[in-house]
Amino acid sequence: MRTRFQQGLDDLRQKLLRMGGLAEQAVDRARQAYIDRDLTRCQMVLEGESLINTAEREIDEAAFDLLAMQQPMAVDLRFILAVTKINSDLERVGDQAVNIAERVMDMVDLPVADLPVDIARMGAAVSAMVRRALESFIEGKVELAQAVLEMDNVVDRMKDDAFIQLVKAMNQRSDVVRQALDALLVARNLERVADHATNIAEDVIFWVQGSDVRHNVAVEEHSEAPAEPEGSPRASGI
Amino acid sequence: MRTRFQQGLDDLRQKLLRMGGLAEQAVDRARQAYIDRDLTRCQMVLEGESLINTAEREIDEAAFDLLAMQQPMAVDLRFILAVTKINSDLERVGDQAVNIAERVMDMVDLPVADLPVDIARMGAAVSAMVRRALESFIEGKVELAQAVLEMDNVVDRMKDDAFIQLVKAMNQRSDVVRQALDALLVARNLERVADHATNIAEDVIFWVQGSDVRHNVAVEEHSEAPAEPEGSPRASGI
Repeated sequence: MRTRFQQGLDDLRQKLLRMGGLAEQAVDRARQAYIDRDLTRCQMVLEGESLINTAEREIDEAAFDLLAMQQPMAVDLRFILAVTKINSDLERVGDQAVNIAERVMDMVDLPVADLPVDIARMGAAVSAMVRRALESFIEGKVELAQAVLEMDNVVDRMKDDAFIQLVKAMNQRSDVVRQALDALLVARNLERVADHATNIAEDVIFWVQGSDVRHNVAVEEHSEAPAEPEGSPRASGI
Repeated sequence: MRTRFQQGLDDLRQKLLRMGGLAEQAVDRARQAYIDRDLTRCQMVLEGESLINTAEREIDEAAFDLLAMQQPMAVDLRFILAVTKINSDLERVGDQAVNIAERVMDMVDLPVADLPVDIARMGAAVSAMVRRALESFIEGKVELAQAVLEMDNVVDRMKDDAFIQLVKAMNQRSDVVRQALDALLVARNLERVADHATNIAEDVIFWVQGSDVRHNVAVEEHSEAPAEPEGSPRASGI
């Protein structure tokens, strides 16, 4: 028999998945808008932001209500706390997509410049990280989450490389300074999306394993927490 | 009589205040490092980051343990959730201070450039926001938190202004492109610190009033939540 609490956990999970879909869509639209210099997609990203903000609020309220409803078991408590953290990261992913759209809107008024940066490749890697992070949440799989952590290093290198090449271009060619700056800021925004995907992956690992993997600390159990049920988080009916 | 739970809430509050002190200090050091081109302060910011990361983890664990310990009243639950959110924002404030320190370390190798930007003034405003946001938490005062929200608009305008002036300088003077870029990125980092201070202020309001002020939504009570005790959060022994 499913309790009202279990139903609440399921609803919370569904809400977060919808939120994740919105954030992922916003990043995909923003990076495509950059590639195609497409103002329509920029507009869609800006309009989508309020949906994301509403979804964030609803998830926080649902999490609060569940915590207030009854004493959750440790694994459920970790799940609810992970959801609230993932929720904030997804909202910030949406903010970064808006920042990218704003850079594109600045850029389309300027002449097209051939720049030494592959934003399309970086954008594809970042979108894959967001998708993978959400999959790791859906499946409750630590291996998927760990793959996201590894991809973050690759994206960091791409951003550093973009930074070096674009600053060089800005120094050498005064006619493309502003376009190079737009590209540099887009690369930075994409890197931040990757950081949020990394945070999400870490929260999934915290939920599933009860460990805190942030800041490269060795995996350790919450020794102070009450005894926890064994098994994957899916076993608790989520 | 103070219960173990109330003692736990007090400890959590003290831990967050220490974390706030570390984050505030990091921003103060980073902005002073920019003004004085001071590598020693940059180094202090980089070294301080691991203290901040450790503090973040300890606070999350303490919050988790309190939630697991017993069924908190609604006002205490809101307090604990607000602490976990403020905790993440403070950690990100620390990250921004590191970003600023890294820009300063890039900048000191370049010739001094006279740039059309007042980073000192913007930095002072941002530090004041962080301080005020932490005060609003300590005092549990909505008015202080609301003042932070208002200051955010001022800082946003400073950043937009810095952006316009610095891009102009980059276009006109190829000899200061990199210095202007460093200044522009520092302005952006400061603006993000201001955003985190704003988030903290919003979380204080959520805690004190039980309302969600994010994204300019009209103040509304959590209608689904159980009945809550009246009075300020300080009444609950926090």
